Amino acid sequence: MGQQTKILLEESEMPTKWYNVIADLPEPPPPPLHPGTHQPAAADDLAPLFPAALIEQEMTAERYINIPEEVLEVYRLWRPSPLFRAHRLEKLLDTPARIYYKYEGVSPAGSHKPNTAVPQVWYNSQEGVRKLTTETGAGQWGSSLAFACAQFGIECEIWQGAASYASKPYRKTMMQIWGGEVHPSPSTRTEFGRKLLAEDPDHPGSLGIAISEAVVEAVEDPSVRYALGSVLNHVLLHQTIIGEEALLQLAKVGETPDILVGCTGGGSNFGGLSFPFLREKLAGNMSPIIRCVEPAACPTLTKGEYRYDFGDTAGLTPLMKMHTLGHRFIPEPIHAGGLRYHGMAPLVSHIYELGLVEATSVLQTQCFEAAIQFARSEGIVPAPEPTHAIAATIDEAKKCKESGEEKVILTALCGHGHLDLPAYEKFLSGEIKDLDLAEESITESMKSVPVLAE
Amino acid sequence: MGQQTKILLEESEMPTKWYNVIADLPEPPPPPLHPGTHQPAAADDLAPLFPAALIEQEMTAERYINIPEEVLEVYRLWRPSPLFRAHRLEKLLDTPARIYYKYEGVSPAGSHKPNTAVPQVWYNSQEGVRKLTTETGAGQWGSSLAFACAQFGIECEIWQGAASYASKPYRKTMMQIWGGEVHPSPSTRTEFGRKLLAEDPDHPGSLGIAISEAVVEAVEDPSVRYALGSVLNHVLLHQTIIGEEALLQLAKVGETPDILVGCTGGGSNFGGLSFPFLREKLAGNMSPIIRCVEPAACPTLTKGEYRYDFGDTAGLTPLMKMHTLGHRFIPEPIHAGGLRYHGMAPLVSHIYELGLVEATSVLQTQCFEAAIQFARSEGIVPAPEPTHAIAATIDEAKKCKESGEEKVILTALCGHGHLDLPAYEKFLSGEIKDLDLAEESITESMKSVPVLAE
Repeated sequence: MGQQTKILLEESEMPTKWYNVIADLPEPPPPPLHPGTHQPAAADDLAPLFPAALIEQEMTAERYINIPEEVLEVYRLWRPSPLFRAHRLEKLLDTPARIYYKYEGVSPAGSHKPNTAVPQVWYNSQEGVRKLTTETGAGQWGSSLAFACAQFGIECEIWQGAASYASKPYRKTMMQIWGGEVHPSPSTRTEFGRKLLAEDPDHPGSLGIAISEAVVEAVEDPSVRYALGSVLNHVLLHQTIIGEEALLQLAKVGETPDILVGCTGGGSNFGGLSFPFLREKLAGNMSPIIRCVEPAACPTLTKGEYRYDFGDTAGLTPLMKMHTLGHRFIPEPIHAGGLRYHGMAPLVSHIYELGLVEATSVLQTQCFEAAIQFARSEGIVPAPEPTHAIAATIDEAKKCKESGEEKVILTALCGHGHLDLPAYEKFLSGEIKDLDLAEESITESMKSVPVLAE
Repeated sequence: MGQQTKILLEESEMPTKWYNVIADLPEPPPPPLHPGTHQPAAADDLAPLFPAALIEQEMTAERYINIPEEVLEVYRLWRPSPLFRAHRLEKLLDTPARIYYKYEGVSPAGSHKPNTAVPQVWYNSQEGVRKLTTETGAGQWGSSLAFACAQFGIECEIWQGAASYASKPYRKTMMQIWGGEVHPSPSTRTEFGRKLLAEDPDHPGSLGIAISEAVVEAVEDPSVRYALGSVLNHVLLHQTIIGEEALLQLAKVGETPDILVGCTGGGSNFGGLSFPFLREKLAGNMSPIIRCVEPAACPTLTKGEYRYDFGDTAGLTPLMKMHTLGHRFIPEPIHAGGLRYHGMAPLVSHIYELGLVEATSVLQTQCFEAAIQFARSEGIVPAPEPTHAIAATIDEAKKCKESGEEKVILTALCGHGHLDLPAYEKFLSGEIKDLDLAEESITESMKSVPVLAE
């Protein structure tokens, strides 16, 4: 037979523990602060929003957390996910590099998001929660949560910014197929929403407003909780199954990565792939360069400051120490909606500050060009988010061609682009241009970041 | 660990031969006839359209055909495809039946169509063909051919009915990502198209017109050939890799099917899954019931006649002996576009006449109801075509619940529905109704079927 393309694991080889990188860091990340008192937030502060088990996971320093059997059962609908050797892309690039990509688009929702949606819903179901609320932008997270809720018989209510709700009907339908109830935000369901609609009946909404509506709905009813799809420690924890599987898969073909690249928005895809490799690096078992790739239009790590800031636009959440462009920062409307977040996961930010990972940024047109090369060689049409990782991977592979180095490059293809084809259509018809980043918009937005007492 | 959900094969276990069921039938299928002379069509008659290797495959009685290594290499981008045990659907239905589904939605184009697109393009490339033309309806076949052409550096030109071209922009973009050139049909590229546009500048087009344009373009230039996505013997041959894999996968868990159900449009998905099982049945190794499931709105096998008829609406192709509703039959615009074909593959028709397979039909609303049950339990959102097989599978599983029989049911989930979500939206909002089949429209259409001399 010819060259192996997919490195698979049997279901019996699927990891049964998530990995908590905090256990192996030289120092723990700074704690979240209560937005009023600026004192470290206690478990009780989070109880109206999250079930006790997830708050425990948010704060624990245990190295490994067992994955419940009920969660593993649902994971087996698509996990272990395949690791691909990109033979055809390597050939196209004429590179001596060996490129591997871990593909998370095989999940029912088409991205890595169900890796955390499923356990979040399960832990809520164990504590008697009747309904989960959340917000969604393009719809990746909302559809993942709706899928997970269908698996455990929990209701799911999703607020989606009115502009996205109207312009992205495919994802809304996906949420509805899985039984989710989707509202355009601002909605008439909350007082806040009604107030905004009274001011402007055609309000386009925003992710920040949608968060506020979802949070309010959860806080007001003790049988309802809220779910978040990125940024928090427990979310990154659940995603580490990606990297744990990739470690086993690379071991099967006797490879260790020289460089690992992942796209970063909130940080959960990147953390999920990289943390198990960081553990191995800290233990001296391998020495990959680990690199975050972010959009030039939303350069949280490369141009943001490491400060305590709010997680949401309205300033309702606990303060988190993270790389931020200021919680009022509104990035250009690039198509990688999942990377348009003003901050970076506190855990990824902390690790970046410790010098354990690097960061770089790429332009949107370069991402789409890379995506077309990828689709024509490897077949899969990538979601706009991972095209950033693909662009950085291709860059690295081209450097190997120049230097003749046979580097092993590992990246994460965190989702397919089947519901993002209008973005490709715009690119192919030449409608997408890169805009210069307005540095003054960051300066302006940073003024909204609270100044804490020493 | 818990119950196994996916039965996988290693790439090294992938079958390396396609299976030609003709070799094992008690009598060969009637030959195609030249449309002018009504004499059996010769290889030369097909040469302007297809390369010699595919014409050879169309006519051969050899039992096995080796799959070229270059084709296997591309297959490995997604093959072997997974076989799922539908534990969660079984639980939902509370049935003692054991349900297995072979999932072809893992291909880059999202359906089983690349199984034949890839070898068709490869054989053309070996005979120096510069460009392939084809028609597409909803876009499944066109996108599969564009993907395959990108793999072997052949140009791809696709005619899509103008109405679909305008209303289904997602699939058009997919074709363009893979480098395909897509024209709305009627187009200004052909004399036939220009004539129709002169009569009606807003002509909505049809699959029949699109076929005519693609065929004309191929016939006029010796460096151009035409490709067809279903119906013909060589297409069904290439699809048998589905059934060959499923046989190996079921053997791994020690199962043989009691009943096998597949949806039938042109017949390639059904033939691909069922022919290897039919071989085993004819050899006395197992005794599954094998059942075709077709839409009640286009009941080729259950209400059509077994006659020589044209493959296209315009009556340009060779005459094929098949179950037909008459080549002028225009089914209601149901959402399973891939099943809206007036005829059935001659090979499937012949096998049905021999009494080796059964046929049944289901209503569209029953299909969508089944699809929602499937999506909420198994996760995957199915394409509208395989929802017919899912509906029939659920019916059978419910019968098992009544009788207490632990039957093994095997079906094919031939594609995902990510680009068919508008159809689901219509269903969920109650806009889809089943219409009574207009029997007189069949009677009328059958008048167009040529009457041959005895």
